[in-house]
Amino acid sequence: MKKIRIDHNTFIPMPVTLVGTLVDGKPNFMAVGWVSRVNAAPPCIAVSIYKGHYTPVGIEQNSTFSVNFPGTDLLVETDYCGIVSGRKVDKSKIFDLFYGELKTAPMIDQCPLCLECRLVDVHELSTNKLFIGEIVASYTEEKYLTDGQPDYQKMNAMILTMPDNKYRALGAVAGDAWSAGKKMKK
Amino acid sequence: MKKIRIDHNTFIPMPVTLVGTLVDGKPNFMAVGWVSRVNAAPPCIAVSIYKGHYTPVGIEQNSTFSVNFPGTDLLVETDYCGIVSGRKVDKSKIFDLFYGELKTAPMIDQCPLCLECRLVDVHELSTNKLFIGEIVASYTEEKYLTDGQPDYQKMNAMILTMPDNKYRALGAVAGDAWSAGKKMKK
Repeated sequence: MKKIRIDHNTFIPMPVTLVGTLVDGKPNFMAVGWVSRVNAAPPCIAVSIYKGHYTPVGIEQNSTFSVNFPGTDLLVETDYCGIVSGRKVDKSKIFDLFYGELKTAPMIDQCPLCLECRLVDVHELSTNKLFIGEIVASYTEEKYLTDGQPDYQKMNAMILTMPDNKYRALGAVAGDAWSAGKKMKK
Repeated sequence: MKKIRIDHNTFIPMPVTLVGTLVDGKPNFMAVGWVSRVNAAPPCIAVSIYKGHYTPVGIEQNSTFSVNFPGTDLLVETDYCGIVSGRKVDKSKIFDLFYGELKTAPMIDQCPLCLECRLVDVHELSTNKLFIGEIVASYTEEKYLTDGQPDYQKMNAMILTMPDNKYRALGAVAGDAWSAGKKMKK
């Protein structure tokens, strides 16, 4: 095959999340796609956010944040939270909120899955800060479970692709992980 | 709605990638889902890998690695690379390889997109190391481009969901990012 070079500022498929914080005591939510699990035990998740944004202020004030997974029914609200800054717009009334054991990580009742995180580390990069949080609690509803575990298909979780800038549903099953490759074992 | 608590070791939808390294001079590939962009400029990507794995050895020997995005046609080979360790099995012959400007980050010719990365930072966590690489080059083929940009739909890129352990295709477009939310602006 013939490989060509393209712009190295390449974006990879991203989960669609809303990061929740309290900034000066007021709930705020920001759409974030630069999110990944980063530690196995204890379970930690990292969110990378541009330093100039409003959300880092809230994370650093409380050392807590939430990562909420909206379904496709919240697409418009989610996109809005990625377009407007909490510095200029009050985003505290868009969703019904609840709090968990950390008390300062606002979570979204309409989201099928909400992770409550305690900040355990910050890794500063040139334009972004990587906030690493221990997941202290995960909240969902019975209807989103399969065999007692979160089911992202039932949640209608979204993936963001760029640069086409599309929110996408999860697609058809292509195969089984930790299984399909066994046939290559001698 | 009625929220319930579930196991806090929650996994989020992940991109399916193969991280390429040279270990003692021999190419090795590992399936990795804990991957995210983490810095805007310069463009950086992070991969989180369990410390005991073989791949960290190669990253630290060369301070380079690659992140390759397989299409669904490489599902079996990808899964195999997630099941067996380079400590026990030679994975250097599974794919046709090529190298870019860094010379020590093996990339997979059969993958529609390959990111060549220079290690710029390591963040050590308790069980995992987060390897932060600057993307110095991105390689694809003309047939995977739309308007000169990578098109993950054309690439048949995969998403991994857990705990159902399914590789999934990208699904139907649910809406437009940086656009759908504008209707909520006053």
